[in-house]
Amino acid sequence: MSASLLVVGSVALDSVETPYDRRDEVLGGSASFFSAVATLLGPVRLVAVVGEDFPEEHVTFLRDRGVDLAGLQRAAGKTFRWSGRYLPDMVGRETLETQLNVFEQFEPQLTPVFRGSEFVFLANIHPALQLGVLDQVKRPTLVACDTMNLWIDSQRSTLEQVLKRVDILLINDEEAVLLTGERNLLKAAPKVRALGPSRVIIKRGDAGALLFDDHGVFWTPAFPIESIVDPTGAGDSFAGGLVSFLAHRQELSPVVLRQAMIYGAAVASFCVEDFSLDRFRTLTREEVAARCQAFADLVRFEDIRL
Amino acid sequence: MSASLLVVGSVALDSVETPYDRRDEVLGGSASFFSAVATLLGPVRLVAVVGEDFPEEHVTFLRDRGVDLAGLQRAAGKTFRWSGRYLPDMVGRETLETQLNVFEQFEPQLTPVFRGSEFVFLANIHPALQLGVLDQVKRPTLVACDTMNLWIDSQRSTLEQVLKRVDILLINDEEAVLLTGERNLLKAAPKVRALGPSRVIIKRGDAGALLFDDHGVFWTPAFPIESIVDPTGAGDSFAGGLVSFLAHRQELSPVVLRQAMIYGAAVASFCVEDFSLDRFRTLTREEVAARCQAFADLVRFEDIRL
Repeated sequence: MSASLLVVGSVALDSVETPYDRRDEVLGGSASFFSAVATLLGPVRLVAVVGEDFPEEHVTFLRDRGVDLAGLQRAAGKTFRWSGRYLPDMVGRETLETQLNVFEQFEPQLTPVFRGSEFVFLANIHPALQLGVLDQVKRPTLVACDTMNLWIDSQRSTLEQVLKRVDILLINDEEAVLLTGERNLLKAAPKVRALGPSRVIIKRGDAGALLFDDHGVFWTPAFPIESIVDPTGAGDSFAGGLVSFLAHRQELSPVVLRQAMIYGAAVASFCVEDFSLDRFRTLTREEVAARCQAFADLVRFEDIRL
Repeated sequence: MSASLLVVGSVALDSVETPYDRRDEVLGGSASFFSAVATLLGPVRLVAVVGEDFPEEHVTFLRDRGVDLAGLQRAAGKTFRWSGRYLPDMVGRETLETQLNVFEQFEPQLTPVFRGSEFVFLANIHPALQLGVLDQVKRPTLVACDTMNLWIDSQRSTLEQVLKRVDILLINDEEAVLLTGERNLLKAAPKVRALGPSRVIIKRGDAGALLFDDHGVFWTPAFPIESIVDPTGAGDSFAGGLVSFLAHRQELSPVVLRQAMIYGAAVASFCVEDFSLDRFRTLTREEVAARCQAFADLVRFEDIRL
């Protein structure tokens, strides 16, 4: 039995171009990836906004997976859109266009039930919206948060208000540098933690992710994948795996946090195997369990006596 | 008791510039780093050439560490020189100048004792020289080899002759792509192995290194270091740790190979803590053992049951 889990973030229509293929106006957005992954372990509550043009089939898909859509507003206007193009290395990318659309006027409203959520993930949206959600949640057990360079640059003081109330911050390495002025991650991490989050997770793309907490540093690699189809959503899938694992275990011990990192990296490694959320349409718990075991095989070694 | 270990490669005078500091004409070269590291576990035989200008103090340093210099020629002319500048991320670098000098006429000559070496490391030099050494070694137990983009581009057929006789190839990710035409490392690795080496190790800089063999994939991270002073020689130190560990254990089992990867990464993580080979002047086996243990703490997690 998982603890209650709430995510606020974007539900989007993505147009993605890779060197090999492309998809137009497919289901995307941080909250979509997060919640699709989270439902592998239990229910999840989604807070987001879509426009009048949002295809009903996506709503059905999320609902059928067990996503509680009581917080999904449908507003006048068009759905948030993102389009991007991946470089030949399938890691670097350029954003071609971001259309905020209905997100410009979005004001998250939590139902009384949603306000009682125990685990909360603030996906990468304007920190004022993140704050608006935090103000409505009564007594969360754990608040995890993502952000991006845009908010670090332009909404610093609001973001710092959010960070004071966050337990786990997930950012990528460039954002950590931008936030702290430190290029070395071992120097950046304590500075991030001094802003509020007792734990910081620094994502390094295909080099994996590092967890910094009172117990030191933990590094999970990114699971090597032979056929990367579309990296979009890998970071949000990682967050979805991580936070839903913690909500499922209802425990924040160092042992469980490390397992949650691996679990998150495992589901993220499936995300990149297809466009949009498509890999999650068929993904089973058994497949995820097998990949967690493959992670162990990837990094384990016997003690070295010199 | 280690098996006999021989390295052929460069002994150089390096001039290194980082965003924070610089050193001119300090001891460098692949064979210097390799052999200084290897002596932590046992003796090593060095095959290289220096010029008349090579400072005697460096010869003394290597000899005092237990490097057998019977294969170090002193030739008329100037010592090989390399100069480079590191980018602010302390990972990327630009080579400012490479002066081959005495290396242009170098012909490795192995003494009868050296010809009997059991473990052989062909550091990154012209593949014709690597071949010249292989032709002199009688019956090696293990041959490991490094190379670079220059030889892949310009000496492909000679390099392929070398690879047919190599057991472990160490290259970086860009070189693996160049050698195979495959951008994905899981696709590149089997193509490299098809060229000869039963095991390939792909180095990924601060993302660590991957070992591909019949038993699958093993990933060692790069140990996170708070104060990186000079990354020069980290790859050669990794090779020195890896191959000397195998020579020391005299065993090539999957378990020992994984330990050798970690041991190599551990000594490489010390290399970057100071300029030139300076960190190795004081480094002890106990410090390396402690870092191997820290590696275990960095990556270990308990089994995940879903």
